[in-house]
Amino acid sequence: MTAYFDHTATGLVDPELVDFYAQALRDYPYNPAANYSEAKRGLTAINKASEEIGRLLGCRAEEVIYTSSGTESINTALKSVGWQTRPKAGQIVAPLGEHPASAETLNFLDDKLERTCNYVPLVDGRPDLSLFEESLATHKTDLITCMAVSNLTGAIYPVGEIQKLKQTYAPQARFHIDAVQALGKIPISFRDWGVDYMSFSLHKLGAPKGLGILLARNNLPLEPLLLGGGQQGGKRSSTENPAQALTSAFAIKKSLDNLAAEEKAANQLKDKFLAKIDALGLDYKKLSPEESVPQILALYIPGLRSQNLQTVLADQGLLVGIGSACSSAKAEVVSQVKALGLNGEPGYHLLRVSFNSRNSEAEASALAESIYTAVDRFGLKQK
Amino acid sequence: MTAYFDHTATGLVDPELVDFYAQALRDYPYNPAANYSEAKRGLTAINKASEEIGRLLGCRAEEVIYTSSGTESINTALKSVGWQTRPKAGQIVAPLGEHPASAETLNFLDDKLERTCNYVPLVDGRPDLSLFEESLATHKTDLITCMAVSNLTGAIYPVGEIQKLKQTYAPQARFHIDAVQALGKIPISFRDWGVDYMSFSLHKLGAPKGLGILLARNNLPLEPLLLGGGQQGGKRSSTENPAQALTSAFAIKKSLDNLAAEEKAANQLKDKFLAKIDALGLDYKKLSPEESVPQILALYIPGLRSQNLQTVLADQGLLVGIGSACSSAKAEVVSQVKALGLNGEPGYHLLRVSFNSRNSEAEASALAESIYTAVDRFGLKQK
Repeated sequence: MTAYFDHTATGLVDPELVDFYAQALRDYPYNPAANYSEAKRGLTAINKASEEIGRLLGCRAEEVIYTSSGTESINTALKSVGWQTRPKAGQIVAPLGEHPASAETLNFLDDKLERTCNYVPLVDGRPDLSLFEESLATHKTDLITCMAVSNLTGAIYPVGEIQKLKQTYAPQARFHIDAVQALGKIPISFRDWGVDYMSFSLHKLGAPKGLGILLARNNLPLEPLLLGGGQQGGKRSSTENPAQALTSAFAIKKSLDNLAAEEKAANQLKDKFLAKIDALGLDYKKLSPEESVPQILALYIPGLRSQNLQTVLADQGLLVGIGSACSSAKAEVVSQVKALGLNGEPGYHLLRVSFNSRNSEAEASALAESIYTAVDRFGLKQK
Repeated sequence: MTAYFDHTATGLVDPELVDFYAQALRDYPYNPAANYSEAKRGLTAINKASEEIGRLLGCRAEEVIYTSSGTESINTALKSVGWQTRPKAGQIVAPLGEHPASAETLNFLDDKLERTCNYVPLVDGRPDLSLFEESLATHKTDLITCMAVSNLTGAIYPVGEIQKLKQTYAPQARFHIDAVQALGKIPISFRDWGVDYMSFSLHKLGAPKGLGILLARNNLPLEPLLLGGGQQGGKRSSTENPAQALTSAFAIKKSLDNLAAEEKAANQLKDKFLAKIDALGLDYKKLSPEESVPQILALYIPGLRSQNLQTVLADQGLLVGIGSACSSAKAEVVSQVKALGLNGEPGYHLLRVSFNSRNSEAEASALAESIYTAVDRFGLKQK
């Protein structure tokens, strides 16, 4: 038996989405940039998919850019602003503990483009709004970037509050949201949130890996990350892939159709799991704040070596996370963990359990018991 | 009936490769960066694929970087060198008329990184070696980049000669090859060619769109284009995709297994086609030089408006190219066409016919007749 509790790392492959993708690859064999109508059918399909995504995410079709990953989307948005606002050189602000795709790109802007990046500490796992306000009030700001939902704890960040602060203190600044973990977990509206860029990754929804989306506000110029043939209105060169666009639209639609049901299922599984570890008497602290999505639960377990626990659980077919799967045991996860106020050793003390309707309550129970037993093995006193 | 003669724009989807990809997506559902063995199976598969690609392309497994496209590969290599050699600021040299993915990236290096890019004219569709020598002999050089096979004419570029010039005049310079059109058409050896970077696109072989490869010499530092979780040894962040690696290896193997047969088929089709237009008395000039792959044939037809011809042929189910499909009717194709010494209006006078074993001789004959008839319709005197 394998029970997968690491949906935050990647959503389990959805066979329906894979089949759909494979069929669409066959259905659109040509290069959409070619001039004959057989090829232009591909462009029509892409535009139709963008319209659908626009309806689902509250943006215009022409604001949808297809990329190869959340990482590419984030790199594109942050570097674009970094280049474009360079002569003005206001600060770039982000909370501490952003996903490595943002954190490392900000390091690049700092190092290569000589931009000043300032970081707002977290309080109870979420950006400290008073320090955010202080930063915006006291510095000229060119760019704000933050996650909508933390990949480490599931914390829902106060995007609306940050947006209000931006409007008050830095209305001219650009605002990027890393919505990779938010998609399918909370409702998203690009227009209502009033942001300029939003990044998404489709494999988190069970779509094939290699499909990402960047939303970029229509009237803003974009400095493309991929230069070349000028596809996607010049915003992202590379041969266009109608199958990607259609599958992205389908995956988003499916995830939003299931949003309420998934939330309910995750809540039940999480409650079951927490009740069980409480009943067993596991010594732990919840790192996920109250304002979290139920799909992601981060626990602090005193003395625990997370990687050891992960391995022991995996031997029993129980797959859990211990931080960004992108960078397990790497320096980047250390910063994310440190931002939560924990010891900086990779994944130390931290356990991340992701819940999805494909998990059963029996699995959640078994996981709780195995964690309790495994923690015992590490010689920690639990009662 | 549809007869596809635009394989240079994109290879017709190979159902075997699509099925293989879809199956591999299902077989490797986890995030390879996770620590449990179920996920690490994915890393093992990627490494196995890289070993295979290493054998096929004459490189080491650790020199294979999976990207989302030829464009991304090219952007990564050129920008990496652009950043890394920046303080020294020697020239960057390329032939005129490179694919837009290179040409536009060189423009970026010029514009944003303040690098000096110099261009070597073509003579008979290939880089003028004496001017190449002059450029290398008279300037300090940091980077040389060129296609191995032209996407516009099929010309096989004298990579070996350029490599010798580099060794003589600029041994410290980096050398990048855009091998997007070379793969599957001529034998390739990263090691024997003695270059530092090579870019590939798998959809040209009929694999799903969105799969690219960059080979990067092992002992050279790489400035990654995608920053984040540090996947692929830090060379390209983004969730790794075992299905991509396995499908890339399979597609390359298949294309090399079929290389001789494809060459033979293309030669026969090309000869048939040329014999037919000669017999009909079409007034044209071959733009593809003697040293060309038989799969790509570029013709200059006096007075012809290429886009009109392309449309007329497409109405009869005959799909041909008129330049880089990435940028049909765009400024980039103008530079490519201009580099051949032709009028700069987009695609003007130029016709690109691509041959593949999936084409029949009857199709090639029909194409020749339709071109002859269609050219008549444009009111050109043909006898």
